[in-house]
Amino acid sequence: MRLSKDNINQRVRRAEYAVRGELAVKSEEFRARLARGHGSGLPFKHVISANIGNPQQLDQKPLTFFRQVASLLENPDLLQHPHVLVNSLGYPPDVLERAKWLLSKVGSVGAYSASSGVPAIKESIAKFLERRDGFPADASHIYLSAGASSGVNTLLNVICADKKSGIMIPIPQYPLYSASLALLDATPVPYNLDESKAWGTDLDTICHAYQKAKADGVDVRCIVIINPGNPTGASLSEADIRAVIDFASRENLVVMADEVYQTNVFVGKFHSFKSVLRTMQKETGGKYDALELASLHSISKGMVGECGHRGGYFELVGFDPQVEANIYKFVSIMLCAPVIGQCLVQVMVNPPEPGDPSYELYNREYTAVYEGLRERATAIHDAFSHMEGVECNQPQGSMYLFPTIRLPQRAIDAAAAEGRSPDEFYCMRLLEQTGVCVVPGSGFGQAQGTLHFRTTFLAPGTEWVGSIVKFHKEFMDKYR
Amino acid sequence: MRLSKDNINQRVRRAEYAVRGELAVKSEEFRARLARGHGSGLPFKHVISANIGNPQQLDQKPLTFFRQVASLLENPDLLQHPHVLVNSLGYPPDVLERAKWLLSKVGSVGAYSASSGVPAIKESIAKFLERRDGFPADASHIYLSAGASSGVNTLLNVICADKKSGIMIPIPQYPLYSASLALLDATPVPYNLDESKAWGTDLDTICHAYQKAKADGVDVRCIVIINPGNPTGASLSEADIRAVIDFASRENLVVMADEVYQTNVFVGKFHSFKSVLRTMQKETGGKYDALELASLHSISKGMVGECGHRGGYFELVGFDPQVEANIYKFVSIMLCAPVIGQCLVQVMVNPPEPGDPSYELYNREYTAVYEGLRERATAIHDAFSHMEGVECNQPQGSMYLFPTIRLPQRAIDAAAAEGRSPDEFYCMRLLEQTGVCVVPGSGFGQAQGTLHFRTTFLAPGTEWVGSIVKFHKEFMDKYR
Repeated sequence: MRLSKDNINQRVRRAEYAVRGELAVKSEEFRARLARGHGSGLPFKHVISANIGNPQQLDQKPLTFFRQVASLLENPDLLQHPHVLVNSLGYPPDVLERAKWLLSKVGSVGAYSASSGVPAIKESIAKFLERRDGFPADASHIYLSAGASSGVNTLLNVICADKKSGIMIPIPQYPLYSASLALLDATPVPYNLDESKAWGTDLDTICHAYQKAKADGVDVRCIVIINPGNPTGASLSEADIRAVIDFASRENLVVMADEVYQTNVFVGKFHSFKSVLRTMQKETGGKYDALELASLHSISKGMVGECGHRGGYFELVGFDPQVEANIYKFVSIMLCAPVIGQCLVQVMVNPPEPGDPSYELYNREYTAVYEGLRERATAIHDAFSHMEGVECNQPQGSMYLFPTIRLPQRAIDAAAAEGRSPDEFYCMRLLEQTGVCVVPGSGFGQAQGTLHFRTTFLAPGTEWVGSIVKFHKEFMDKYR
Repeated sequence: MRLSKDNINQRVRRAEYAVRGELAVKSEEFRARLARGHGSGLPFKHVISANIGNPQQLDQKPLTFFRQVASLLENPDLLQHPHVLVNSLGYPPDVLERAKWLLSKVGSVGAYSASSGVPAIKESIAKFLERRDGFPADASHIYLSAGASSGVNTLLNVICADKKSGIMIPIPQYPLYSASLALLDATPVPYNLDESKAWGTDLDTICHAYQKAKADGVDVRCIVIINPGNPTGASLSEADIRAVIDFASRENLVVMADEVYQTNVFVGKFHSFKSVLRTMQKETGGKYDALELASLHSISKGMVGECGHRGGYFELVGFDPQVEANIYKFVSIMLCAPVIGQCLVQVMVNPPEPGDPSYELYNREYTAVYEGLRERATAIHDAFSHMEGVECNQPQGSMYLFPTIRLPQRAIDAAAAEGRSPDEFYCMRLLEQTGVCVVPGSGFGQAQGTLHFRTTFLAPGTEWVGSIVKFHKEFMDKYR
């Protein structure tokens, strides 16, 4: 029997990943048409990929220090020419030193590393975590991964034993979680974030979702928190984090803290789950010592934006050593994370310091990216606040806005006639008429009866935002 | 309930991956002790990692052209200084051209690419396949992957629907296959390779294994062939490949051709499954048109040896478009393969040509690696042929030798007393006494009643081979 959609793994068939779904595929077709000069029939000149947090596809330039180091790691022969590098090519001495240090630890970036990552890079991450959190970190519990996605995949594969295994995921969520759970045939236990409270966590809602799942016979094992939020852009308060930790501790749940946007914070301050947990442990003299925490980070986001390099790591706290042995075994089957990505993780957690030759340029580039993101977030938020039927929380963090849209009944009927959800219908028309690709809220999950879309605020300029505003007005007029 | 080895995913617990298992972990501990200067109690000065095909961890130097291009991809600012690159740093003009071309297609290597890979790189691979095979190749059926391992993982995830789904795997096999099937809870259908015929495939054995599995109610879906062989080092004849294709066509099995060692061939010629299939289709006027073939390749092996970069691809032939849509969806959940690895795939399939400025150096380096591998393979084979109770087929391809060892009954008893298989016991003693890490045959599977180990022939020098010979004699004497 030949393979068909009906006899292959139906878990793959059921998995949904809207960020790279039909809209994204269509936007790539438009882009290819325009590139071939066959876009004369299209009402736009450019495709704006606001569907995915892909900074360097848009106007974000890589940080010079990172790439200078990477170029030397790729071709260590260049280090034979320090004079040329420094004087003719403008490579500062700290770039050379960092590359030499990494090469001394890695050997060749073309060689497999240890499966959990290059030991010295793990040590370097542990030191960063100590500086960030003010608490000790142990390199032996750090695992390098091919981006945070691969880390999430590893953790879910180990935690989920069978169909009954439940993982609490926020709604809206980044669809990596629901897709991975579909592939594993485990049970997502959704809990709604509170849009009226800037998309924060609400403990009553979480408890209620947990109790309901338990009553349904689900073996709830873990709660996922994405902070800062994707797609919501929320940045959690310390009080919210404490409440989640207390709840997870009471119910013996693993906490999976997806903290890949930890430097993308515009309002308040990022609180890591690790630092809050350690603080609570200290305050209570051991009450929370049994809690299992996995926290993830990545080079893909922040001001680094090196997602094409697929680098990241996760740190485990409080896990049973025999469980960790199985995590190690799982990652070893895919051998190791890309080594150049591992090196960029080391650079991310140890960037140039004040006084270093590369510091000034690094700081200037970093700040420019940060300020650019904040300015665009604010500008788009302003534009949304003037659109009929659109409401959007103030941007607090990450790279996304997730406005609510209220559509006329006639638009909802037209969507149904096309076999689409109303938000998907809206986003499809937006793409076809403006070239702007955003993701419908249904791709992330949303409270029943609400509609949203997610847009990144990475794309340069404001013209595309203007075209959203114009499209929206016409759409509302058409279906009024 | 906290996570424990007993309540986590038991499929992970059951999976075995000996190449990075206990012996490998112990060898890394020895290496770390020696590096810290705490090796005084050890009877050796160096650890030789002959357990894994990791060329650049040993003496294999990266190919200069590849790394010069990669350094420019990482830091395109260097391209602003063509004079310095060419005159001071010795970058030939074709390196600059290649980097510019790749950057024009990729944008930034720090950006996510399309999930199935950069379109222009897929086109480039298709053209390579056309040159290699003499038959058309279609870029839209090519998928870039993070090494071949990730490609195998994708394909098995889609092909295996449930417990009953059976995948025929060679014995001995590369344990990625058995481990992935354990994770998927699908059924491995082992078929023995014929050690007496240089580890070739034997059609009667394959048919017999297939019929037995069918009789047991297994829904056999696919046959995996590793050619050249891992761990066997065999290189299949065209007749063997034809027989497998004919069998798979008759039984409607997907053929998964793991061809990552396609350039590591010392005896005869590499025949790709694609070229043999197309030839058979042509000869028979369509008899084999329905066959589904997935063939995999990688930058990790061959003379390239860039495994740390995690680059590879697979090509699909004859797959249903809706099945391919699900393969696309599966790969999209992990976003994309590392982009710098994708670029190195492009370089691998389009190396410098005669007349290009980089050709002479490339050719010299490539040939030196090839000849070095062949010489070491031959030297180790010679050494093995003088060891009591050891028999080893002539090295034909890949990077491995897989000798049979016959151990005295007292050694077998001593192993049992330690709770180990005899070959594992042997390999553990070898590591402890010589620092040479090889993998016991039981990690790959072996015909009942036989014992083997796998060694790479990547490590430089012959001293370590001498220490295996010496160890073996002492071991045999001790347990005689």
